Amino acid sequence: MSDQIKTNNAIVKRSEDFSSWYTSIISAAKLALYTDIKGGIIFQPRVWKLWSLIQKEIDQRFVHLGVCNVALPTFIRYSEFMKEKEHVDGFAPEVFLITHKGKDKLDEPLVVRPTSEVIFCDYFRKITTSYNDLPIKYNQWCNVFRAEKTTRPFLRTTEFFWQELHAIFDKETEAISFTKQILDVYYDFATNVLNIPVIKGEKTPGERFAGAENTYTIEALMQDGQALQCGTSHYLGTNFAKTYDIKFTNSANQNEYVYQMSAGVSTRIIGAIIMSHSDDNGLVLPFKIAPEQINIIELMADKDPNVHLNALKIQKTLNKYRVNIDNSSKSFGYKISEAEVSGIPFSIIIGSKDLANKQVTIYRRDLKTKAIYQLDGISETIEKLINEYNANLFKRAQDNLRKRTITISTLDEFKNAINEAKLIIAPWGGDIDDEKKLKELTGATPRCIKENITDNVKCFFTNKKAKYLVYFARAY
Amino acid sequence: MSDQIKTNNAIVKRSEDFSSWYTSIISAAKLALYTDIKGGIIFQPRVWKLWSLIQKEIDQRFVHLGVCNVALPTFIRYSEFMKEKEHVDGFAPEVFLITHKGKDKLDEPLVVRPTSEVIFCDYFRKITTSYNDLPIKYNQWCNVFRAEKTTRPFLRTTEFFWQELHAIFDKETEAISFTKQILDVYYDFATNVLNIPVIKGEKTPGERFAGAENTYTIEALMQDGQALQCGTSHYLGTNFAKTYDIKFTNSANQNEYVYQMSAGVSTRIIGAIIMSHSDDNGLVLPFKIAPEQINIIELMADKDPNVHLNALKIQKTLNKYRVNIDNSSKSFGYKISEAEVSGIPFSIIIGSKDLANKQVTIYRRDLKTKAIYQLDGISETIEKLINEYNANLFKRAQDNLRKRTITISTLDEFKNAINEAKLIIAPWGGDIDDEKKLKELTGATPRCIKENITDNVKCFFTNKKAKYLVYFARAY
Repeated sequence: MSDQIKTNNAIVKRSEDFSSWYTSIISAAKLALYTDIKGGIIFQPRVWKLWSLIQKEIDQRFVHLGVCNVALPTFIRYSEFMKEKEHVDGFAPEVFLITHKGKDKLDEPLVVRPTSEVIFCDYFRKITTSYNDLPIKYNQWCNVFRAEKTTRPFLRTTEFFWQELHAIFDKETEAISFTKQILDVYYDFATNVLNIPVIKGEKTPGERFAGAENTYTIEALMQDGQALQCGTSHYLGTNFAKTYDIKFTNSANQNEYVYQMSAGVSTRIIGAIIMSHSDDNGLVLPFKIAPEQINIIELMADKDPNVHLNALKIQKTLNKYRVNIDNSSKSFGYKISEAEVSGIPFSIIIGSKDLANKQVTIYRRDLKTKAIYQLDGISETIEKLINEYNANLFKRAQDNLRKRTITISTLDEFKNAINEAKLIIAPWGGDIDDEKKLKELTGATPRCIKENITDNVKCFFTNKKAKYLVYFARAY
Repeated sequence: MSDQIKTNNAIVKRSEDFSSWYTSIISAAKLALYTDIKGGIIFQPRVWKLWSLIQKEIDQRFVHLGVCNVALPTFIRYSEFMKEKEHVDGFAPEVFLITHKGKDKLDEPLVVRPTSEVIFCDYFRKITTSYNDLPIKYNQWCNVFRAEKTTRPFLRTTEFFWQELHAIFDKETEAISFTKQILDVYYDFATNVLNIPVIKGEKTPGERFAGAENTYTIEALMQDGQALQCGTSHYLGTNFAKTYDIKFTNSANQNEYVYQMSAGVSTRIIGAIIMSHSDDNGLVLPFKIAPEQINIIELMADKDPNVHLNALKIQKTLNKYRVNIDNSSKSFGYKISEAEVSGIPFSIIIGSKDLANKQVTIYRRDLKTKAIYQLDGISETIEKLINEYNANLFKRAQDNLRKRTITISTLDEFKNAINEAKLIIAPWGGDIDDEKKLKELTGATPRCIKENITDNVKCFFTNKKAKYLVYFARAY
């Protein structure tokens, strides 16, 4: 798999080399650039705008649920970090350690946050006294840091961006219910904003977040048949509360530990967007988060001032969208191809001839088709096209998901399906060690639990009684 | 000076201990909390909301000037960082160094960015080819890290947030003009959004940013007579371009180095807001960036359902503002005092009696006065009050600035004025060493140049011919 972003604008064919196709898209659409630090990338203007739009969508859903944004320090005292054993084991090899300021050695190293449970716990302990203080629902949009062995832009980078939602409750039922509610937010966001069909469910014990009692996930299937985890919500129980001493006085005046959850969506979702929708001509983006939604291309505007005047008029009519006018001196072919590579959903092409007939040509990025529309009612036309566009993106991704989903009952069937890049539904009764063995043998991992099995069905791998139906796939 | 945020809500009197007053406000208004890392603070919900509103205001001004947001890595390779000598000397003692990932020692330490000139230079080099690529105007909203010896919330913290604008040009004149244009943005923002009167000008050589040819600043004077730098814009010339090899081909097809600038406003401006406007009753905030702008306090709503209905109606009428309804079971006195401490500009108090007369009482935070207004036309009333409120905040701060500004011509006068906590205008002909001596002697530093002197006037400190009139003050 190629680890480098291509520096020319040529897009590799998906069918030839999916991995190089992915990085060639990132380069051609000017999304990211590598820096000279291993796994470090620059989020260029177009992708940072996209991430800002994602932030806005998720953030307004959080605010609706009473979540407040905060900002917590990036550095964690080493001794504090080391307190929760399971958590430490999950992150220890990946953490960056600060040992010096200037030339002076620090008394104690500082951990650069790979996630912020520890710092939130410290904060929660300080502000929690009684059940009247609860629930507390805080979120931060921030950068986190992990030393990854193999890196790929957006999917695995040394530094990445995410939101970390951390909340504490006086009642366990409320904490669990909120954990699931946040997963529903992610599900809604993936479906209705990103046009990505996702599967939602509980993780198997081997795939849980380090320190969590339960991890819930939404999983998407990329065009190459590999799964990508798009968002997770963790019920942490009282594990961290006990370690970091977060207590409250309940209504009966007794001391109790708080019930805690955390959840996050990260910039790796940008990878999911690219690999769900894009094609051999370049980037294809969901309309709602496209940095430029509509591109107006002027045809020979130098010969007819009416062309630019009408472009401005259309821009004004469509001012609830992000509309860009391309009146550069570049050729028409170049402009269309640039809009295509960049994933601008619609290009409106206007020239003298069309205007004389009160028409424009609209190019649709998803279908790569052009059609003529009346200038009158352009606003309603675009609205209709946007709905069709979003539905089409979702449908294509859903077709891929359906086509690739298969139910199996033996290991041989499993191996064949994995080699055909399928999403597998299979009865599972194994434990964490069996999950590891299966991964070594096939490269596939459990993505999430589909449902519990009460009937007498055998696990395809261990032949023990199966506990649940599980989705398996190779995953990013 | 107290280094701790008080944990009770008592506000210290400004006249008794300005420094403790400052930290007591931060605690009582629930803005920040210390963590157990030296100089680390948590930005609590109210202050993070305030910072988000500041971001929005500055960001929209930048977008208007063609600036794009990006996100660059936090880690810098040590050898890259060390390349620009003057820059390194300015930051070396303050930088945090990462030496390990997990248990493995890194081949080369990583510098945690104290500022991002080096990373932007690397980026600019990669994307700049010809004059057609220029200008490039990029900004990032991010966190930066400096190991400070003495720390105070917002003013000096180990980690802080800011925007870093970095831009490159093919023409020197354009680069300098843009440097000044950004300073004008900051000036406008401080004046019209924060209601803080600021002085703007060029820094003396000793106060320039490490590696800059010129630094321009806006400076505000706090209620205790100490100055606070609120925003800086640096013309970097070709210093970094030469070190980091950022070249372009000009229209004559020759290779040239780019002309560069950078500029920033940081979370320390929150300190300026607090120390410019607040009083002995708590926080006072500029209306535009107040997290809650209007508070509706219901009086005995349990006895009259009309009260809550009208509160909702008012909230709807005023929906272009951030309006909070306080219908908790707390006492009226508690509610008013909480709104006061928190710096909510207006509280609208509604009860049955007032409603019967179609009236409400409005409490104004800046004047601490209550007055009765007709419910009819509440929207226009509030608009008028907001204008008065903003003008009053600005006027009070301006009065402080005027009252404290003094022109002197001898060292004795200078010393007296500094002891009286004044902002001093004085003729200056000294060099960097003289600036240091003056600081050792009086604690005061040059804040910025007021104007050049062409007449034969003597420097108050060196008796040499003065070059310019300079503003001096003790500074945060």
